[in-house]
Amino acid sequence: MDSLYLKPKEHRRLFKGHLWSFSNELQSLPKDITAGETVKLYTHDNKFVGTGFYNPHSLIAFRLLSRTGEIPNGDFFRKKILNALDLRKKLYPESDTNAFRLIHGESDGLPGLVVDCFNKAIAVQAFSAGMDRHLPLICDVLLDLFQPSSVVVRNESVLRELEGLPLYKKIVHGTSADAVQTIHDTGLQYLINLLEGHKTGFFLDQRDNRRIVRKIAHGAETLDVFTSDGGFGLNALFGGAKSATMVDISTDALQRAEENAILNKLSNYALIKGDAFDVLTQLVEEKKSYDLVILDPPSFTKSRKNLPSALHAYKKLNKLGLQLVRNGGFLATASCSHHVSEEDFLGVIRQASFTQKKQLRQVFRNTQPADHPILLSMPETHYLKFACFYVNEM
Amino acid sequence: MDSLYLKPKEHRRLFKGHLWSFSNELQSLPKDITAGETVKLYTHDNKFVGTGFYNPHSLIAFRLLSRTGEIPNGDFFRKKILNALDLRKKLYPESDTNAFRLIHGESDGLPGLVVDCFNKAIAVQAFSAGMDRHLPLICDVLLDLFQPSSVVVRNESVLRELEGLPLYKKIVHGTSADAVQTIHDTGLQYLINLLEGHKTGFFLDQRDNRRIVRKIAHGAETLDVFTSDGGFGLNALFGGAKSATMVDISTDALQRAEENAILNKLSNYALIKGDAFDVLTQLVEEKKSYDLVILDPPSFTKSRKNLPSALHAYKKLNKLGLQLVRNGGFLATASCSHHVSEEDFLGVIRQASFTQKKQLRQVFRNTQPADHPILLSMPETHYLKFACFYVNEM
Repeated sequence: MDSLYLKPKEHRRLFKGHLWSFSNELQSLPKDITAGETVKLYTHDNKFVGTGFYNPHSLIAFRLLSRTGEIPNGDFFRKKILNALDLRKKLYPESDTNAFRLIHGESDGLPGLVVDCFNKAIAVQAFSAGMDRHLPLICDVLLDLFQPSSVVVRNESVLRELEGLPLYKKIVHGTSADAVQTIHDTGLQYLINLLEGHKTGFFLDQRDNRRIVRKIAHGAETLDVFTSDGGFGLNALFGGAKSATMVDISTDALQRAEENAILNKLSNYALIKGDAFDVLTQLVEEKKSYDLVILDPPSFTKSRKNLPSALHAYKKLNKLGLQLVRNGGFLATASCSHHVSEEDFLGVIRQASFTQKKQLRQVFRNTQPADHPILLSMPETHYLKFACFYVNEM
Repeated sequence: MDSLYLKPKEHRRLFKGHLWSFSNELQSLPKDITAGETVKLYTHDNKFVGTGFYNPHSLIAFRLLSRTGEIPNGDFFRKKILNALDLRKKLYPESDTNAFRLIHGESDGLPGLVVDCFNKAIAVQAFSAGMDRHLPLICDVLLDLFQPSSVVVRNESVLRELEGLPLYKKIVHGTSADAVQTIHDTGLQYLINLLEGHKTGFFLDQRDNRRIVRKIAHGAETLDVFTSDGGFGLNALFGGAKSATMVDISTDALQRAEENAILNKLSNYALIKGDAFDVLTQLVEEKKSYDLVILDPPSFTKSRKNLPSALHAYKKLNKLGLQLVRNGGFLATASCSHHVSEEDFLGVIRQASFTQKKQLRQVFRNTQPADHPILLSMPETHYLKFACFYVNEM
């Protein structure tokens, strides 16, 4: 195994629990070690930091696996997966849900690996060259531990390009029929297809926030913007909403939302196909109003350099949303953009509120759920922002 | 009604939804207007800002009541109270709880007023000279709207001294027997005495966080530090904890915790009387360990100047707590100090974690509940920080 050395002082963040070294922090970036190889990392004065994945092509040149020098073999992955499973078993009894994120990358000590469990099927994503190289081994361990009907690899994220990895999806176990599953989550069922849909087939990360929406939906005329599989809108109806209008630009998404509505015997919903900004602008022009407006857009930026335009888009979106909320109604609003901090996100909503002369009382604020844990030592693992406001005239 | 004028530019914060002007932002601080009088406020160039309470003795010289010039009469208080009640009715069906904060001061448009409802009894606090002056009128409106068995005024906070107000408590309606109530909150009952106990008799603000603790308590040996009425420890037992050891320095608090345990037919608890730091230090020396440690201390500082010593105390407390959590266990930790930001709070826990060589996965992060809303335009209304971590060796 090759050894790499950090520049002076560059071990400090790692010693405080962080798992990455950036390319400018290493003394050299040898090109003869291939992307994804396991290496030993040392401080400038020869103190052992740990073993980890090396990638000379990535800004994140080193991702820590083990401070005690373990190597990524079957036993290592089995131990990490069982530790992550232990947390999920404590959090999610089968009666609550049969769908959860089993491995959330760095937060579960497996940098660049994401594993989602949907009833009997498993979806896997690799975001680092090291994890990509070990996918066959990881799939074997998952098959052995869980005997899933299906294992699907969804390696389609553009973030893989930062590691020099190709984009693809494939079934590595089972048939495409096995990749279709019905999951349940606290009383609602969803039909999902691990081979289709965004990311790995379903947005698990809004689970707790959908429950918040249920609590405030009773009797509400609801507008669910960027509905995807209908998650928020259907939870509003389940919580007693008078109606739910679900908006998405994708015909497939609206079809899934409708299938899920039928599966749960929910009615009083309407579907609007169109660009969210266009649809909201038109609803404002038509002087429509709602008791509950939910804004759950996809990420507006994948990079830090586009932050100003992302914040501009969030402000515009939330201004439109606020114009559609009745006094005494609620705005539930989210951001899943990694590069938008919670402070920035709440800041643009504050700006939107006073330009619209609204006084906003924050009644819930949340982040990603417990199966997407945030490593306290690594702010990069925090990405989801969610807040719910009681809206009145200023 | 007297008129006051702001210095140039000092209206900006108010125009963005904030409700305070500080003494250095007013053009003059006339001494002939008595503390608590209602005045009109104008910008330097004669634009109307609103009506509000004036206090020449307080750093917060003006607290906004109405941007349309309303005066604080019975109709005004009735309207504000009904608006606040509307939010609570949407949030808390009677089947969930019969105890909630009805008025959370500035956040409900009534600067300096706090009203808590406990079943048939009401506790009132005034933190501003203006509200203090209107307490008889406010109590009349509350009596008319709710017909409570008892109304208790708990004006004991040292924050009143900043407004030049005396400290006292008294019953303004009903008898001391009526001030004893049994409340329920999602399946648990609590015996409370509005005339005794901290603040207004019971800490409503940890309601949602106690439910989080329930979720992770199954099978756990639990340590509940600063237990007060037993809220966290009893919820852990209700959630299936193997045992709960509840620590408090107050004999009265431990007695209330025990009464509540008996009321809910919960057993497997132990009580330890003592200073939290001393008790934790001794438990560490005895090499005790727990699956779940809860730290819910009182405010460590009432002023900004004591922030460094408060942060030092939080760090010390959380270091002790972390030493008592088993690997694979949970630390639930809170701060109710207004002057400690969430960033500072999470920062000291991060420091505590790496000095103890622990890797912390944040599984829940929360703030005060929806009946203590946070005004988006006024960060001062945010005070409660809460986080729950899954703890392992680094």
